[in-house]
Amino acid sequence: MSDLRVAVLGVGMMGGFHVEALSRRIHGATVTVINDFDRSKASAIAGSVGARVEDDPFAAIQAPDVDAVVIASPGPAHEKQVLACLDRGIPVLCEKPLTIDPGTALEVVRAEQRTGRQLVQLGFMRRFDPEYVAAKQLIDSGDVGRVLLLHCIHRNMANGPHFDSAMMITDSVVHEVDVARFLLGEEITSVQVLKPAPTSAAPEGVFDPMVVIFRTESGVIVTVEIFVRAQVGYEVRTEVVGERGSTMFGLDQHGVTKIAGNDGGRWGGPVPPGFVERFATAYHLELQRWVDAARNGGIDGPGAWDGYAAVAVCAAGVQAVRTGEVVPVELGGTTLGGITPDGITAAGTQDEHEVGS
Amino acid sequence: MSDLRVAVLGVGMMGGFHVEALSRRIHGATVTVINDFDRSKASAIAGSVGARVEDDPFAAIQAPDVDAVVIASPGPAHEKQVLACLDRGIPVLCEKPLTIDPGTALEVVRAEQRTGRQLVQLGFMRRFDPEYVAAKQLIDSGDVGRVLLLHCIHRNMANGPHFDSAMMITDSVVHEVDVARFLLGEEITSVQVLKPAPTSAAPEGVFDPMVVIFRTESGVIVTVEIFVRAQVGYEVRTEVVGERGSTMFGLDQHGVTKIAGNDGGRWGGPVPPGFVERFATAYHLELQRWVDAARNGGIDGPGAWDGYAAVAVCAAGVQAVRTGEVVPVELGGTTLGGITPDGITAAGTQDEHEVGS
Amino acid sequence: MSDLRVAVLGVGMMGGFHVEALSRRIHGATVTVINDFDRSKASAIAGSVGARVEDDPFAAIQAPDVDAVVIASPGPAHEKQVLACLDRGIPVLCEKPLTIDPGTALEVVRAEQRTGRQLVQLGFMRRFDPEYVAAKQLIDSGDVGRVLLLHCIHRNMANGPHFDSAMMITDSVVHEVDVARFLLGEEITSVQVLKPAPTSAAPEGVFDPMVVIFRTESGVIVTVEIFVRAQVGYEVRTEVVGERGSTMFGLDQHGVTKIAGNDGGRWGGPVPPGFVERFATAYHLELQRWVDAARNGGIDGPGAWDGYAAVAVCAAGVQAVRTGEVVPVELGGTTLGGITPDGITAAGTQDEHEVGS
Amino acid sequence: MSDLRVAVLGVGMMGGFHVEALSRRIHGATVTVINDFDRSKASAIAGSVGARVEDDPFAAIQAPDVDAVVIASPGPAHEKQVLACLDRGIPVLCEKPLTIDPGTALEVVRAEQRTGRQLVQLGFMRRFDPEYVAAKQLIDSGDVGRVLLLHCIHRNMANGPHFDSAMMITDSVVHEVDVARFLLGEEITSVQVLKPAPTSAAPEGVFDPMVVIFRTESGVIVTVEIFVRAQVGYEVRTEVVGERGSTMFGLDQHGVTKIAGNDGGRWGGPVPPGFVERFATAYHLELQRWVDAARNGGIDGPGAWDGYAAVAVCAAGVQAVRTGEVVPVELGGTTLGGITPDGITAAGTQDEHEVGS
Repeated sequence: MSDLRVAVLGVGMMGGFHVEALSRRIHGATVTVINDFDRSKASAIAGSVGARVEDDPFAAIQAPDVDAVVIASPGPAHEKQVLACLDRGIPVLCEKPLTIDPGTALEVVRAEQRTGRQLVQLGFMRRFDPEYVAAKQLIDSGDVGRVLLLHCIHRNMANGPHFDSAMMITDSVVHEVDVARFLLGEEITSVQVLKPAPTSAAPEGVFDPMVVIFRTESGVIVTVEIFVRAQVGYEVRTEVVGERGSTMFGLDQHGVTKIAGNDGGRWGGPVPPGFVERFATAYHLELQRWVDAARNGGIDGPGAWDGYAAVAVCAAGVQAVRTGEVVPVELGGTTLGGITPDGITAAGTQDEHEVGS
Repeated sequence: MSDLRVAVLGVGMMGGFHVEALSRRIHGATVTVINDFDRSKASAIAGSVGARVEDDPFAAIQAPDVDAVVIASPGPAHEKQVLACLDRGIPVLCEKPLTIDPGTALEVVRAEQRTGRQLVQLGFMRRFDPEYVAAKQLIDSGDVGRVLLLHCIHRNMANGPHFDSAMMITDSVVHEVDVARFLLGEEITSVQVLKPAPTSAAPEGVFDPMVVIFRTESGVIVTVEIFVRAQVGYEVRTEVVGERGSTMFGLDQHGVTKIAGNDGGRWGGPVPPGFVERFATAYHLELQRWVDAARNGGIDGPGAWDGYAAVAVCAAGVQAVRTGEVVPVELGGTTLGGITPDGITAAGTQDEHEVGS
Repeated sequence: MSDLRVAVLGVGMMGGFHVEALSRRIHGATVTVINDFDRSKASAIAGSVGARVEDDPFAAIQAPDVDAVVIASPGPAHEKQVLACLDRGIPVLCEKPLTIDPGTALEVVRAEQRTGRQLVQLGFMRRFDPEYVAAKQLIDSGDVGRVLLLHCIHRNMANGPHFDSAMMITDSVVHEVDVARFLLGEEITSVQVLKPAPTSAAPEGVFDPMVVIFRTESGVIVTVEIFVRAQVGYEVRTEVVGERGSTMFGLDQHGVTKIAGNDGGRWGGPVPPGFVERFATAYHLELQRWVDAARNGGIDGPGAWDGYAAVAVCAAGVQAVRTGEVVPVELGGTTLGGITPDGITAAGTQDEHEVGS
Repeated sequence: MSDLRVAVLGVGMMGGFHVEALSRRIHGATVTVINDFDRSKASAIAGSVGARVEDDPFAAIQAPDVDAVVIASPGPAHEKQVLACLDRGIPVLCEKPLTIDPGTALEVVRAEQRTGRQLVQLGFMRRFDPEYVAAKQLIDSGDVGRVLLLHCIHRNMANGPHFDSAMMITDSVVHEVDVARFLLGEEITSVQVLKPAPTSAAPEGVFDPMVVIFRTESGVIVTVEIFVRAQVGYEVRTEVVGERGSTMFGLDQHGVTKIAGNDGGRWGGPVPPGFVERFATAYHLELQRWVDAARNGGIDGPGAWDGYAAVAVCAAGVQAVRTGEVVPVELGGTTLGGITPDGITAAGTQDEHEVGS
């Protein structure tokens, strides 16, 4: 079977990573077209992998040498680019967010539904991380009983002053939105945000850290610590508490080094500086499985409904930051004939037990 | 110096433990008098350690062969027994709660104040646990920066149907109330309680688990998972999140056993079944230091104000369970001439750096 | 650049894994030819990946649609197959052992030397495992000082009766031979084998477990516990002890699950059942880097000298099992003009700091 | 029951620790007499606990206000002091070594045997450490199957130039001698010592670190890394490998601190600087149980035979350092009517399941 010819829209950090991986690590894919608003950057990267540059993202989507599209452009551009992929009927892997508000995200879900196929996959790479996959399997095995609580820690080393409380929800907590939905297999129904006295590293007016509380359809409560200027490194930790047991992962105790110090010995190890170090394997698995599925015209991971749900929960979360209230989340799915989360997201979990996970 | 002669009021599980420890493990103490509403139980235990039985707790407190008192009787009896000790001017180690409501607890604080000495020590044994002491030292060292968040996990294996949501606050979360006040060195100003769908092991009408949220004077947010029918064992874990670092303790990874199982190998170890196993060392340190201080007529641990603060926060917590609202905590201290938390509680933290910690 | 066309000789467990990975996970490779003494097996696997079957391994090596060869055939076949690759001047990735005795292994080193290029890479995949790479970096950084001791644990769940004490050296300990040489950067000079009373799971006459002791040129002592019927699972753990610190890895504490048991709670997790689960990432990195290097006609990993050294140390080890003595290891390299371990193995360590490790 | 009146002979570091513990931590004991060759030191310590000084250790042993003796004097003085206690028929807790050579140690065993009672307890405090007690229970439970191997790590931060290879055996490895005998319940039959290139921190002629190999009666092999100038801290770790499982303890992962560093975040914690920090609880349990037993005229821990066996193994170990050979250990017990390890050491393990362990 010939390689999947991929156009990558946007070659910032994330898009650049995808170009590199598709060109040197992933079997069965070739990056043929690159688009970025910064043409010189697009040219440089295209040159290094033998792709061509296309200035117009929509021309890239329509190009005859493109079988599938990776969208890593700025969030506001996603809606139209995804819709163009749906129009042409080709698979698309879209980095979060699907769109920038719940209404447009639901429009994308409806547009995909009209094609009669699943073509849109979201870049929630944690669903491919071996630890999350193992936790999902443990939950589904029933060994810890029905899940009652989920505790999430999400810390970054540092972020610039532009990264405000709303972005902490839409760019960071969005991962825990998807983790909660993935692990629990149900929708989030409300969001509340608690704001402790902020770190002195936070700009004026930015609440960092925050504690975000989700409640789900069946009454599970999810607590999320989001702290994007924690100074230490990248820490993503999850504890699932069930009726008969719990599981905690992400402690990162891979190796223990004991070493002489100035004031006595210490044991320990490094905290990974960022998400690429922590989730490189997940990204590669995500891409390989998407390429494999896309060569057959489908997806193999979180779909448009998952993208819509994330957008809707984050919108409620941003409102919860502002008001301090418990903000309900209402998903439009129930009013859509035939659209149910189960139907739409089924594909996303079908292969979690694969080799290598 | 001759031994401290101690009367123990109440010889249920906790009182029985104290009698045993004072009689066989703690240097410088002799249990001379035992009181319990169940006379035959009091007789059996007294006989085993060479003490005598006194049917009236107040006669025990007044007895000429008693230098100090340990109160391990039911909570409603504490107020009058502590006051009787203050009347006689002898040291008393009182198991939680100090009294059953904030008003009476504040009366005890005032009564002690009138004696001009600190005579009342509360049985918050975690302040003597090496892990909490190390965390307190780490916080005070400034190495993790100003504290922003505290995450607490508190799970028991099982509890009877009488252990309702209010008791989960007053008998269990009360330890986290004191831990938060001890580690942070400030008062709690509000309480909120979140109630997920309960475990099927919980009786009708009991919310188990719950997530309790404290806010402190300086704006620290404390999250507490309380789950008293977790089926697994006794788990007490704490994470302190500061501006420049965090510390987590209570993971209990003392030894790693790898063992053949029916379906492949497993690694792991036992979860301690209960609090005595987990905190035996803390209890012994608590008693030894109290005996040492009491022989000199003082205390060496949490005092009456700490007992009052715990009662006041728990009362707000019980209200928060009922109403679902954020319930403010108001401490009467500011209206009392001369009573300030600092003045009253100073003794409690002076020796945390002792040998053995 | 067009894909590297690979012939895979031998499609048992290891060869089958390589076919699958080269065909579905590794970028830039296509398996074009498959050879196995079991023709039906070769056909089935070839059919699944679109390759053709070649009955004669030497014809496969000479085939015009073959640019490089993976040798996963039985050990006794390796020598002639590797020499045939050298004759044709194409890159070859050879699973251990290079050959079955030191004399023939040295012949391969000399034959490669006559080509003037490095074409032979050995399948010591641990050099690509992130934990070993991190340990190597730590040693090279000087942070733990000069290395004094290396402690290795190597346990398998089970093995058949054919797996005797000699195979425990040549098939299992051979990995620690390469690990020691890789981490320490020097040759092993003697081997001693200690034999405790064997497990009752061992067949008559097989010493399982054993403790193998290496001494290196600079006087480092390496202790290796080899236990291939440990019943628990696959455990590979290493501790490096330096003058100023130590590092231990392989404890596998990725996630901690606490769970209710019949007789009280337990915490822990699974021990991986086998080497594929433990080293899947290492195998994929090994293959991807070999493919990348082979497309440029070279290697990127342990070379022929490393294969020779492993064969020589294992031969001494087998003798040490039999005699109980300290058996010296003599490498022929010093008598060969121009062959030095440094010169030959340099390529193997040049890229340990790559992304993704 | 009145307090046990104890004479402490030798108040260096260890003796001073015992005086402090007996006087302030242990129930039922009073230090009445103190002896040390440094009279002013004896006076200072005696004054702080209300004891009197006795210049002649034998007068102290005979004193009418002495019921039992703790020997913490230099090793060469032990033999005569222990014999004097046996002469008077009073309990004695003797720090290692029992005597300085196997012949005299066996004489002490015989002398005790003639008293018809067990009066001599050795200060092998690890038998009281909760981790070793748990390991012993695990072994005795049969859950890991018959033990095949024992791996021990024993590291100190630093030691002076006087601490030579022989002392590394007699003062340090002696603890592993007792640990192996305690955990395995059998005698050591040979010793071999492997000497890697020493740390640059070792004085000329001192082999540090060393790997010591024991073989036991049933064929278990014990590997001991002894490294007394490891620069990091005090690390004592043990792995027990059985037919169906293994257990490792001493990893010291009590708390995990993650903290910002100059070059990125780190996780970890302190390594304890010395044995008092690591084994304080064990020392206190040892003393409390010895005091309890001594008040009834007996012992509750390792006895004279254990002391003799340790002396005999260490003597073989010192010879093994010198010769590099496997040195057999021959215990005289089999030639003594009625002296068998089982009979003599039974008391030492009878109460391992006590509260607090």
